[in-house]
Amino acid sequence: MKAIIVQAEKEDRDLIYTDVEKPTLQSGEVLVKVAAAGVNRGDILQAAGHYPPPPGASEIMGLECAGTIVDAGDTNQQVGTEVACLLAGGGYGEYVEVPEGQLMPIPKGFSLSEAASVVEVACTVWSNLGMLAKVTEGQRVLIHGGSGGIGSFAIQLCKALGAEVAVTAGSQDKLDYCRNLGADILINYREEDYSEVLKNSCDVILDIMGAKYLRGNMRALANDGIQVGIGLQGGTKAEINLGLLLAKRLTIAGTTLRGRSLEDKAAICRDTITHVWPLLEDGQIRHHIYASYPIAEAAQAHRDLVSGEVTGKLVLEF
Amino acid sequence: MKAIIVQAEKEDRDLIYTDVEKPTLQSGEVLVKVAAAGVNRGDILQAAGHYPPPPGASEIMGLECAGTIVDAGDTNQQVGTEVACLLAGGGYGEYVEVPEGQLMPIPKGFSLSEAASVVEVACTVWSNLGMLAKVTEGQRVLIHGGSGGIGSFAIQLCKALGAEVAVTAGSQDKLDYCRNLGADILINYREEDYSEVLKNSCDVILDIMGAKYLRGNMRALANDGIQVGIGLQGGTKAEINLGLLLAKRLTIAGTTLRGRSLEDKAAICRDTITHVWPLLEDGQIRHHIYASYPIAEAAQAHRDLVSGEVTGKLVLEF
Ligand SMILES: NC(=O)c1ccc[n+]([C@@H]2O[C@H](COP(=O)([O-])OP(=O)(O)OC[C@H]3O[C@@H](n4cnc5c(N)ncnc54)[C@H](OP(=O)(O)O)[C@@H]3O)[C@@H](O)[C@H]2O)c1
Ligand SMILES: NC(=O)c1ccc[n+]([C@@H]2O[C@H](COP(=O)([O-])OP(=O)(O)OC[C@H]3O[C@@H](n4cnc5c(N)ncnc54)[C@H](OP(=O)(O)O)[C@@H]3O)[C@@H](O)[C@H]2O)c1
Repeated sequence: MKAIIVQAEKEDRDLIYTDVEKPTLQSGEVLVKVAAAGVNRGDILQAAGHYPPPPGASEIMGLECAGTIVDAGDTNQQVGTEVACLLAGGGYGEYVEVPEGQLMPIPKGFSLSEAASVVEVACTVWSNLGMLAKVTEGQRVLIHGGSGGIGSFAIQLCKALGAEVAVTAGSQDKLDYCRNLGADILINYREEDYSEVLKNSCDVILDIMGAKYLRGNMRALANDGIQVGIGLQGGTKAEINLGLLLAKRLTIAGTTLRGRSLEDKAAICRDTITHVWPLLEDGQIRHHIYASYPIAEAAQAHRDLVSGEVTGKLVLEF
Repeated sequence: MKAIIVQAEKEDRDLIYTDVEKPTLQSGEVLVKVAAAGVNRGDILQAAGHYPPPPGASEIMGLECAGTIVDAGDTNQQVGTEVACLLAGGGYGEYVEVPEGQLMPIPKGFSLSEAASVVEVACTVWSNLGMLAKVTEGQRVLIHGGSGGIGSFAIQLCKALGAEVAVTAGSQDKLDYCRNLGADILINYREEDYSEVLKNSCDVILDIMGAKYLRGNMRALANDGIQVGIGLQGGTKAEINLGLLLAKRLTIAGTTLRGRSLEDKAAICRDTITHVWPLLEDGQIRHHIYASYPIAEAAQAHRDLVSGEVTGKLVLEF
C-alpha cells in the first residue's frame, strides 16, 4: 500500500510518499481504509525527530483519520462502517490498524474529512479540560494560543461548559477570531503581560508554552487553580517556586495523549463521544477545515502548518 | 486570660506566657475553654517568623486543641460539649474562638490531650492523601519522613486504605518504627537514593522536602503519578523538567491547611470525621503522645520538637 513516512536518513528529514507493507491485525484491532487524515503539531514534531512514536506504534505518520472498516479482525465491529479513529500513528497510510476502543462514530452532519481532523483535538481538549481539570460553570479558564487548533476548540468547549474564557494570541486578527468563538478576555501576548492582567484569577490554565510561561501561569492562577500542560513550545526546563505552589494550593499537571495505555485511550474516546460529540453535532463547537491536500502532498501541508498562517485544521485526503 | 504568644520584638523571638484579651465571638463561632493543645511544625515556623498567621487569625499560637464549649454564640452547639478543634491559631490560649465547621467530636476512647493532638495531622493527611490524591487499594505510596508526626499517621492511613507504603527516614531505628506501623519498603535516605530504588513505581508521593526532592520524586513517580507537597524542609525553588511531566503525565500539587477558606476547612473536617475517625476509634490508626507539658512550658516543647528526637506528638496542657 502507499503511505507517508519520514525519510530519516536524509539531512532534512523529508516526508516521502512510498510503498510500505499493509498492516496486519492484532487481537482487538480492526483494519480501516483511510479516506482522510488530520495534520497535527505532533506530526511536525515527529517528522523533525522530536516526538518519536511510542514503542510498538506504526512508523507511518498520522495521529487521527476517518475511513471505512474493511476487516473487523476478531472484534464485533461491522465491515463497511464509517469511523473516525484516534491513532498512535499510521493515519497517513492507505490502511491503518486501529484498536477497537479508539473507533469513534462520525459526528452527525460531518464529512469524513471533518471527522478525520477533529478526533485528536477533541480527545486532547476533553481529556485535559473535561476529565483532568474538570472545568465547570462560572470558572475562569485561560487558554494560551486561542486561535490555534487546540485553542479554538478549547474556547468553544469551555463556553459550552459555562466558563469564562481568557485567551492569549499574537495579533489582533487572531484575537478577533477568538472573540468570534466566544472568548471573553483577549490578550495580545506581544503587547501585554497576561500574568499581570489575570493575576490570581484563573481557575484553570491550558498551557502549550511550557517553561516560558510557568512562572506567569502560577501568578495568573487563583488559589486552588490547576494548570494542565500539553505543549512545550517555550522549552522544558523552568524554575518552580514551590512556596507559591503550597501557599496558593496549586496543581501543575502535564499530559500527552499518544503515550497513554489502550485502556486510557478507550476511556477517553468513550467520554469524548458522550460529552463532546453532541456539542459538535448541534454546532456549539464549530470545526473548521482550513485546507485539504492530496495525501502525496503531505510535505506541503506540513510546511503550511509550520508557517503559522493557518487558522483551523489541515487535512490529507486519499 | 493567659496565652502563649511570640515575643517578636526580641532578637530570639521567644515564646512568652502572658495575659491577653479573651477572644470575642463572630457569627458562626463558639468559645472553647482549652484543655490541651497539640504542638506542630507550623508553630515552630510561626515562632521563627516564617509562617505568619493568615489575615484575621489569632496572634496566639496553636493550630489544634480540645476542650469544652463555654459559649455557643449564635450557633446551635451545646455549652458543655467536649470538642476537638481545627484552628488557624489560638490553641495556646485559655479560651479560643472556633468556627462551628471546625469542631470535631472527641474520637471514642480518646483523652482530650489525645484528641487535641490528632486534629491537625488527621485533617492534613486526609485532605492530601484521601481527598486530593485519592489513594486507593493496590497503589504504591511514598511517604517521606515516615517516622515524623505526619509520616507515621500517613503510613497507617495508607495501609488502612489498602495501599503499599514506601517510606524514607534518617536512621534504622526510625525505619523500624515505620515497619511497626505497617510500612512495606524502608529506605534510609542517608544511605540510599530512594529515587533509584523506587524509579517509575510510585502512584502517590507525600512530600515534605520541597525543592530538594522534586527531581527525585518525579523520577520515583510512575506514569500518571501525583505528588502532593505539604512541606518545604529542603527549600522552595527548584528546576522542574516539564518534558518529563508531560511524558509521564505527572501532577505536582501543593497545599497548606491553614490558609484554606472556612468552607474548605469545614468540608475537610466533615470528611475527616467520616473517613478517619472510625480508623482512630477501632485502632487501625494508633495515635501516640510522646510527651505532655504544662502550657507555660511551651518554649521547652518547641525546643524538644526541633531537637529531632521526638517520635509522636507533643501536647501542652492547661
Ligand atoms: N499533549 C498532547 O496530547 C497534545 C495534543 C495535541 C497538541 N498538543 C500541543 O498543543 C500545542 C498546540 O497545538 P495546535 O495543534 O493547536 O497547534 P497550532 O494550531 O499551531 O497552535 C500553536 C499556538 O501556539 C500559540 N503561541 C505561540 N507562541 C505563543 C506565545 N508566546 N504565547 C501564547 N501562545 C503562543 C500560537 O498563537 P499565535 O498564532 O497567536 O502566535 C498558536 O495559537 C502544540 O504545542 C502541540 O504540540 C499536545
Ligand atoms: N501544608 C500543611 O498543611 C502542613 C500541615 C502539617 C505539617 N506540614 C509539614 O509537614 C512536614 C512534617 O511535619 P511533621 O509534623 O511530621 O514534622 P516532624 O514530626 O518534625 O517530621 C519531620 C520529618 O522530616 C523528615 N526529614 C528530614 N529530612 C529528610 C530527608 N532528607 N528525607 C526524608 N525525610 C526527611 C524527618 O525524618 P528523620 O527524622 O528520619 O530525619 C521527619 O520525619 C513539616 O515540613 C511540616 O511543616 C504541613
